[in-house]
Amino acid sequence: MARVFARADAVLTLAGPDGPRAGAAMSELGIVEGGSVAVDDGGAIAWVGAHAALPSAFAEAEVVDCRGRALMPGLVDSHTHLVWAGDRKDELELRLGGADYEAIFARGGGILSSVRKTRAIDEDELFEQSHVRIRRMRRCGTTTFEIKSGYGLELEAERKQLRVARRLARQAGYRVRTTCLAAHAVPAEARGSAADRAAFIDRICEQILPALVREQLADFADVFCDRGAFDVEESRRVLQAARALGLGLRVHANELGPTGGAALAAELGASSADHLLYLDDDDRRRLREAGVVATLLPGTSAVLGKPYADGRALIEAGVPVAVATDCNPGSCAFENLAMVLALACYGNRLLPAQAVCAATHNAAASLGLADQVGSLQPGRRADLLVLATADVRDLVYHAGSPLVEQVWQDGVRVA
Amino acid sequence: MARVFARADAVLTLAGPDGPRAGAAMSELGIVEGGSVAVDDGGAIAWVGAHAALPSAFAEAEVVDCRGRALMPGLVDSHTHLVWAGDRKDELELRLGGADYEAIFARGGGILSSVRKTRAIDEDELFEQSHVRIRRMRRCGTTTFEIKSGYGLELEAERKQLRVARRLARQAGYRVRTTCLAAHAVPAEARGSAADRAAFIDRICEQILPALVREQLADFADVFCDRGAFDVEESRRVLQAARALGLGLRVHANELGPTGGAALAAELGASSADHLLYLDDDDRRRLREAGVVATLLPGTSAVLGKPYADGRALIEAGVPVAVATDCNPGSCAFENLAMVLALACYGNRLLPAQAVCAATHNAAASLGLADQVGSLQPGRRADLLVLATADVRDLVYHAGSPLVEQVWQDGVRVA
Repeated sequence: MARVFARADAVLTLAGPDGPRAGAAMSELGIVEGGSVAVDDGGAIAWVGAHAALPSAFAEAEVVDCRGRALMPGLVDSHTHLVWAGDRKDELELRLGGADYEAIFARGGGILSSVRKTRAIDEDELFEQSHVRIRRMRRCGTTTFEIKSGYGLELEAERKQLRVARRLARQAGYRVRTTCLAAHAVPAEARGSAADRAAFIDRICEQILPALVREQLADFADVFCDRGAFDVEESRRVLQAARALGLGLRVHANELGPTGGAALAAELGASSADHLLYLDDDDRRRLREAGVVATLLPGTSAVLGKPYADGRALIEAGVPVAVATDCNPGSCAFENLAMVLALACYGNRLLPAQAVCAATHNAAASLGLADQVGSLQPGRRADLLVLATADVRDLVYHAGSPLVEQVWQDGVRVA
Repeated sequence: MARVFARADAVLTLAGPDGPRAGAAMSELGIVEGGSVAVDDGGAIAWVGAHAALPSAFAEAEVVDCRGRALMPGLVDSHTHLVWAGDRKDELELRLGGADYEAIFARGGGILSSVRKTRAIDEDELFEQSHVRIRRMRRCGTTTFEIKSGYGLELEAERKQLRVARRLARQAGYRVRTTCLAAHAVPAEARGSAADRAAFIDRICEQILPALVREQLADFADVFCDRGAFDVEESRRVLQAARALGLGLRVHANELGPTGGAALAAELGASSADHLLYLDDDDRRRLREAGVVATLLPGTSAVLGKPYADGRALIEAGVPVAVATDCNPGSCAFENLAMVLALACYGNRLLPAQAVCAATHNAAASLGLADQVGSLQPGRRADLLVLATADVRDLVYHAGSPLVEQVWQDGVRVA
């Protein structure tokens, strides 16, 4: 039966074009005061407008009273590594106690410890562990998830991660886009020599990516193009192979230094360049001209005590900006994107309205999903949040407070 | 009827002496694995221990199944300004957009705008606005609240704030300790001359504090001893007057510079010195020797983009540390103390166990309430949290996630 979310003090429609939005458009939330949203039987939005103009066709619809509340699109988390095995809380304590990454690595910590556990785990158990996390994430307001592999670093375990991501969609009902991040780190078995390393890149391009594409497990490919990971040449090779296979491209870029990842993302027309702590005006210009979405991950800066990417400079340079959690076992296991949206204001210097656009429409656009989610417009999926406040700025002002009262996906209440 | 919280994977008892804990004692959470907590009809804890040893007297008690979960004391927020009128979200946006405090002040923002609104508001309306906030705070796990006045700056409005704080306790059932912070700022009417300013200090000492003590509205007094507020001499005068009236002492100290507030807190044996961004070894030694609790407010650093107080240095120097939200309309309106506890790790460099002690037992000790709350021991009030995880470190690892599953106060479920 049709349903009407009725008489919200503010409906944040984010109505507008499907492409990533930049500049002033990021602050235009398309707010309808005293607004309602009608949803059809199929879980699509049928109508949005001032309640007084609600078409009579919805007179008999079930009503969700939204007086005193704001309605907004479900959040879109466009950068997560949420399928992993085990945890690295011991490592977190070592780090908080002052240990550096090398000392942690020497004690068996670091990314390769997640690789060992993820390779070893049974697929069903990996699904269960990941399901616990994604359920909490949705409880906090996220209704669309990008999920990367990258703790396999070999075909079998990469496949296992992405199969779990697909099961979270097909079996558990989450809205998921998947990314193969086989080029996340050099695995232990390829660290012996330059030849071993080159052979690993070959395997990614010639074995892992083709197999995962054949099995329809990946929508995007990503590369960690940075110091201590892969250089620009290696990254270009992997991304070109991915593009030839029809995958969208994402790039971990310029997190640890000005290492050329952002320029590479622009050169290849990637959908997203992520992290971006070290950019210059030229990098920003390239990203803008190529239409790459700049994805900020302020949680990781908060956890690691690093600087924050300069989000305001990106917006002033006309680059479309998204915000995501980076939820992963090592550097930042934050699950609450609404809280991270607040960190994007305090850390990356976004305004609240810009951060809302960044974590909804622009994140969806970077995933090629802006025609489905990230805004409240007729024809879009009814993924929406009922806030326990009429003022969305409270997500920033009262960061971390339980302000996401109801979470709906495809017109069905899920939290 | 008696109730047993049964078979928790971990009961964090924080058992130990009532005084503030420092050094290694801050990491000792007194964890009982497979533990249970029995609560009597009067809402007091009757017994704590391994479930196998549960006395037969509790065989018929109602059971709250805590398998797979951790039990811990309700959080104690020992520094809030949660009774205020209106909001300053416009000011937050100006600040995020790059405006400095002077520009905001010139536009009618800043603390005096909260003073204007709080003076003008009806007491019932002030109660309602404050109740919305404190309810959310308790939903996040806080069961004991310190509440300061300080948006009145004249007897009548200071009284109104503290009456609301008492009503939140007596009428709405929250556990509250009150603090008169009449020396929060110099009000507009006393900014004309040095004589006006001196007369304001006189009014605090001779009129406001005595009246509020007579009416039993204040448990503590506090002074904002810092740049742009009150100097050490003025602060000493107010705090001495308060002490003579039998009030406990708290001090806003060394937030904006090395302004002598921490040394003053030590000199006067204050219960707490708060903020503490600018301390030297001598300050830390004085705080330790005087037994002053150092209260960290990392949310304020996060919002204002300031440095974080060096919590690790305080702990290494043997100073007992507490963590609180500072919830206030201007610099930090955070309500979720569990999230702020995580910020204390990432920002103030506390370990998770230290942060748990800081936001429970040590905060309670700074309020003179350690014999009632902040630990799970026989005779204490049954203020406790059931976490949706067995590992309390998840409050830090997954900061901001909905991990506080149940909130109990006096043995009654309140959220």
